Amino acid sequence: MRKLLFVVIWFVSFVTVIEAQSIKSPNGNLQLDFTVKNGVPVYSLLYKNKPAVKESKLGLQLKEDKKITFENAGEGKQNVNANDLTGGFAITKTETKQFDETWQPVWGEVKNIRNNYNELAVTLTQAATERYIVVRFRIFNDGLGFRYEFPLQKNLNYFVIREEKTQFALSGDAKAFWLPGDFDTQEYSTVTSNLSEVRGKMKDAVTGNASQTTFSPTGVQTPLMLKSQDGLYINIHEAALIDYSAMNLNLDDKNFVLESFLTPDARGDKGYMQTPCQSPWRTIVVGDKAGDILESKLILNLNDPTKYASTDWIKPVKYVGVWWEMITGKSTWSYTDLESVKLGVTDFANAKPNGKHGANTQHVKEYIDFAAKHGFDAVLVEGWNVGWEDWFGKTKDFVFDFVTPYPDFDVQELHRYAESKGIKIIMHHETSSSVRNYERFMDTAYKFMVANGYNAVKSGYVGDIIPRGEHHYGQWINNHYLYAITQAAKYKIMVNAHEAVHPTGLCRTYPNLIGNESARGTEYESFGGNNPDHTTILPFTRLMGGPMDYTPGIFEMDLSKLSSSNHSHVNSTLARQLALYVTMYSPLQMAADLPENYNRFLDAFQFIKDVAVDWDDSKVLEAEPGDYITFARKAKGSNNWFIGSTCDENGRTSNISFDYLDAGKKYIATIYADAKNAHYKTNPQAYTIRKVIVTNKSKLSQYCAPGGGYAISVIEAADAQQLKGLKNL
Amino acid sequence: MRKLLFVVIWFVSFVTVIEAQSIKSPNGNLQLDFTVKNGVPVYSLLYKNKPAVKESKLGLQLKEDKKITFENAGEGKQNVNANDLTGGFAITKTETKQFDETWQPVWGEVKNIRNNYNELAVTLTQAATERYIVVRFRIFNDGLGFRYEFPLQKNLNYFVIREEKTQFALSGDAKAFWLPGDFDTQEYSTVTSNLSEVRGKMKDAVTGNASQTTFSPTGVQTPLMLKSQDGLYINIHEAALIDYSAMNLNLDDKNFVLESFLTPDARGDKGYMQTPCQSPWRTIVVGDKAGDILESKLILNLNDPTKYASTDWIKPVKYVGVWWEMITGKSTWSYTDLESVKLGVTDFANAKPNGKHGANTQHVKEYIDFAAKHGFDAVLVEGWNVGWEDWFGKTKDFVFDFVTPYPDFDVQELHRYAESKGIKIIMHHETSSSVRNYERFMDTAYKFMVANGYNAVKSGYVGDIIPRGEHHYGQWINNHYLYAITQAAKYKIMVNAHEAVHPTGLCRTYPNLIGNESARGTEYESFGGNNPDHTTILPFTRLMGGPMDYTPGIFEMDLSKLSSSNHSHVNSTLARQLALYVTMYSPLQMAADLPENYNRFLDAFQFIKDVAVDWDDSKVLEAEPGDYITFARKAKGSNNWFIGSTCDENGRTSNISFDYLDAGKKYIATIYADAKNAHYKTNPQAYTIRKVIVTNKSKLSQYCAPGGGYAISVIEAADAQQLKGLKNL
Repeated sequence: MRKLLFVVIWFVSFVTVIEAQSIKSPNGNLQLDFTVKNGVPVYSLLYKNKPAVKESKLGLQLKEDKKITFENAGEGKQNVNANDLTGGFAITKTETKQFDETWQPVWGEVKNIRNNYNELAVTLTQAATERYIVVRFRIFNDGLGFRYEFPLQKNLNYFVIREEKTQFALSGDAKAFWLPGDFDTQEYSTVTSNLSEVRGKMKDAVTGNASQTTFSPTGVQTPLMLKSQDGLYINIHEAALIDYSAMNLNLDDKNFVLESFLTPDARGDKGYMQTPCQSPWRTIVVGDKAGDILESKLILNLNDPTKYASTDWIKPVKYVGVWWEMITGKSTWSYTDLESVKLGVTDFANAKPNGKHGANTQHVKEYIDFAAKHGFDAVLVEGWNVGWEDWFGKTKDFVFDFVTPYPDFDVQELHRYAESKGIKIIMHHETSSSVRNYERFMDTAYKFMVANGYNAVKSGYVGDIIPRGEHHYGQWINNHYLYAITQAAKYKIMVNAHEAVHPTGLCRTYPNLIGNESARGTEYESFGGNNPDHTTILPFTRLMGGPMDYTPGIFEMDLSKLSSSNHSHVNSTLARQLALYVTMYSPLQMAADLPENYNRFLDAFQFIKDVAVDWDDSKVLEAEPGDYITFARKAKGSNNWFIGSTCDENGRTSNISFDYLDAGKKYIATIYADAKNAHYKTNPQAYTIRKVIVTNKSKLSQYCAPGGGYAISVIEAADAQQLKGLKNL
Repeated sequence: MRKLLFVVIWFVSFVTVIEAQSIKSPNGNLQLDFTVKNGVPVYSLLYKNKPAVKESKLGLQLKEDKKITFENAGEGKQNVNANDLTGGFAITKTETKQFDETWQPVWGEVKNIRNNYNELAVTLTQAATERYIVVRFRIFNDGLGFRYEFPLQKNLNYFVIREEKTQFALSGDAKAFWLPGDFDTQEYSTVTSNLSEVRGKMKDAVTGNASQTTFSPTGVQTPLMLKSQDGLYINIHEAALIDYSAMNLNLDDKNFVLESFLTPDARGDKGYMQTPCQSPWRTIVVGDKAGDILESKLILNLNDPTKYASTDWIKPVKYVGVWWEMITGKSTWSYTDLESVKLGVTDFANAKPNGKHGANTQHVKEYIDFAAKHGFDAVLVEGWNVGWEDWFGKTKDFVFDFVTPYPDFDVQELHRYAESKGIKIIMHHETSSSVRNYERFMDTAYKFMVANGYNAVKSGYVGDIIPRGEHHYGQWINNHYLYAITQAAKYKIMVNAHEAVHPTGLCRTYPNLIGNESARGTEYESFGGNNPDHTTILPFTRLMGGPMDYTPGIFEMDLSKLSSSNHSHVNSTLARQLALYVTMYSPLQMAADLPENYNRFLDAFQFIKDVAVDWDDSKVLEAEPGDYITFARKAKGSNNWFIGSTCDENGRTSNISFDYLDAGKKYIATIYADAKNAHYKTNPQAYTIRKVIVTNKSKLSQYCAPGGGYAISVIEAADAQQLKGLKNL
């Protein structure tokens, strides 16, 4: 028997050696090699002949399923386990294809996106079980995507995934920008370390969260940003996560091999599949400049074009909101101080108000006035609906109904008032992760929104999922997030989901998904603070999958001024807060601070008023993850540019050019920068504003304070009159 | 420390001894004794001075909850665990009350139901934790109900139940009619044995089911029917199961103590509670005649009056259906023989039909014709909607959409046709236990029903629950069943839910719940057969909580005549099948066999046509669980009676009187009985029909064959002409 086994393996090995496959990216810089060794599919990826991913195994383990029978299993075939899709394979077919198209996103960083790749589809047959799968590779100039496809067939129809065993073998002890692997939260600070240091730094990295489930001392999340010892920038993530569990990565820190680790359900299973079906794409974005990663559209390109017949109801949004005051403790979401409430039972109308309720009609009108005065599109209002007294941590099933306002929030009057001012109110649906409850009310809640003039909703999934035992990133709940988006589309409602699964480019297919949180946002500046380098990393990690509702724009860093019991400090200079509107791309941008704080700094606030939220072009001018990022973006349908730069706690001097401006034209650049004595901790509000003339020949050397940055609006001069009194840069 | 503990216990003991409480039933036959011993609440129940339940402990264990803090916990108080509501109690308040009212059910076995009890509410305070609970006892002439109540209080607000520890200590090794304890199915054959034999018989008792989760070698289900060694009939169950997990019982078979064992969720937790709240009622129905149990309305009385403003849309239903032909294998639910389908993907219109699809328009019209001809109200049609090809056992989430018919089922035409014949079609919603999927489509599905003339739905929950890890009888899913009922009520739709949790009298509060399965129904006669004594037990067990859609009326016992591959035999005589319309009370009664089989025996079928489905009065004439049951029932709004008798495999002679008939009146009794040579196995279709005159002086001695029985219609004679040629009984 042992001998026979050897013969079989040798035979398979022989077959696969001659069947090794190789494809290159359209520009030839990347090369994928694929083969089957001893029955095991393996791939590797070269970037300009440097190893981006060394030989790495592919496959999946299935849960035992007695229904799979192998009628013709003969001698020598028993050595392949029926529940194993990791070995026993031979290549039985290969197909290659070239693809090149340019498409226009509904909203985005650029006007046109080129989707250009070479494709290799390999059919892998497991002779012993008479099953086959297809691994489809798409190699772009900026990286590789591949997925598993499971065609309908007799011996592979319904199956349960025990684990996906996709490896990413790195060439060495890369520098990594990582979050602890988790099934329920991404709201960790990014740790920057070599992979060999992950294990030692894990304990401190796992900070408390409202819901969290770690799984391994070397587990990390995607998007995972890496910098190899030989200088390659590598980003590993997934695209088109639909009807599948989200992927974490488990690190073999001896060999520097990362392996997929899917989010389990309550029983520990990883996915329920019916053929024909496929996995999400596994993505490896590679470049030799950090900016290559930031400019990649590979993940969007691996998602399907939009499924919506019309998208004209989807619009980028700049908004303010009744929110930061609750986050900082200045006001409350809840209307009363009752310790315990029950919807339909508690008489809110006759309950004693706590006097600190943020979402009251008068106060919301003040926000509407402020929004209208300064040209915003919308006002988010949280805490408007009954149930906030005990919504968190009580594992309440019927926690919100999404349609019943507190007594002091007059929906009709605010609808009327906002409409009269040309302002939209953004709905808020905190689900408290009671997912069934949300789905029960969803249709009614969306109808309520339409009836009352809302066209966008911020949804939230704080706390442990109900049904208990499910996780935020499992297949069952991922299915829910997409249901919420597609149901919303029926009502022409845009969705900004917080605490949902990491984005994977689904906004291409479902462009009413105009935002997600899925990372440690600005709110953490009020919960102890974000690291000063936080915003130099997020575009390399979280933002790879889609826009983030980061809620920048905090002008008052000393939060005790808002709420005496809040001792947090916002770890950023004011100038850098402006830069984030450019560096943290999103079609949904909040000016998160209170109107009273903006009124103190109206000259700086002007940038937030001016900055675009949709773009025809975007360029990375400088970038190094963890250190700095400088973006220049061209506003949609205009000739104006906006530049933002963010740096880490060390400060630096940024050197950029303006060579992307039209030749021969003059522009007025308004530079919002850190003052010389600015510092994110000790002097964050020290900024300078200067106006200068720039052309495509201009160059700027700009100081950035520790935890600082700068923002520039670059407006094409209409005439010479405008330039009067301005100097050249 | 030990000494102090002793003193405390002694003190508590002393307090409780003087605080022992006792109340009696209105007629004085039952006596409840309650006290606290060593801090532990205990109760006992006497029936005519015989122990029905010996001293039994009460309490609950909570899941560890760090949020419960005890500010004033002082010396000597630490011995009570913060997560323990089983000890450390003292009685701090008692209240008693008498109650007597008579109410009319929307439908039922009797016109008027008397709700007459004496109540004792005991407040139990746990001094160490500064918490209190209330145990409320209601003692009726036919038994006891009690529940735990958890008032809103500082130290008991949100809590998780680890286990309810309610005991029912029996006086000895009672005879029990039991099902294996299970979280997912009640579809077992009842085992009749002494309690001491449960452990030994468990293995054989656990027969296969589409979804099953047993939990203990001595676990049993409720309603549990018992007969004590001293001759008491005792039934243990629960009433008003709302927002709580269903109760099984775990048997200590050395001491004959039964203890509650709740259905867990995916994490093993038993219930999520927010005060004020309460447990369901735990019920102990007691009598010294078996008929006392069958006539008890205690469980209905412990449920709240109906919450519906109008109930005139709720009507009892006698129906036929396109169902038995699928159950027996003669036709199929599915339209094609495709091995795998996906809704929205599979093109059913162009798929090859299998030629055996039961729910085709023409065939359904034949059922409508049959129903109209014979005076039925409705036709159930299963397998009308797409998805049946692979609906079971594949753990498919999106398995049905509840609105898309197969190509050969013309919803509009059948609506028109049925309406023209005065027949309703009963909708069928098999969920395949994909509960979220059902809720997503529920509103649309109910609207579809209303638009197409349906006013009743049979729902089904076959297979393991999705979300995976939840059980059929857990709090989360119980919440769903009630949601389905109350949502249906908004559309004036009646619900008959199969595979749902055991009924607990909720049909009083929600009378559109006109039926449930929740036991081994007639379908099992096609899956190997039910025991011949099955229907002599079900009224003592399953039916205690509410009506069952048992689907009787099978006339052809040799199922190979319907489908050659079916080798099952229906273990009943034909005459007994008629009796079941009387012995198995339900406002929803099916004539389950095929029209062609009824056409062969139209004289016997006449009883099914005549029998009522709603009653002004019901009397148990004879009963012994496992042996025989004879009921006489008076049809709603008429002076006609219907009698049914079912017996076990031994056969017997039934002796009944007619003394409930009006004095001085003459009635025509049509007696449908087993022939002398009838036998459920060898000669089931041998029956006799005779017409005789009966008065309130008449007595009948009627032979019942093994596995047989009889049915009698007793129609008041309109005039002497009708009696012509008939003899007196």
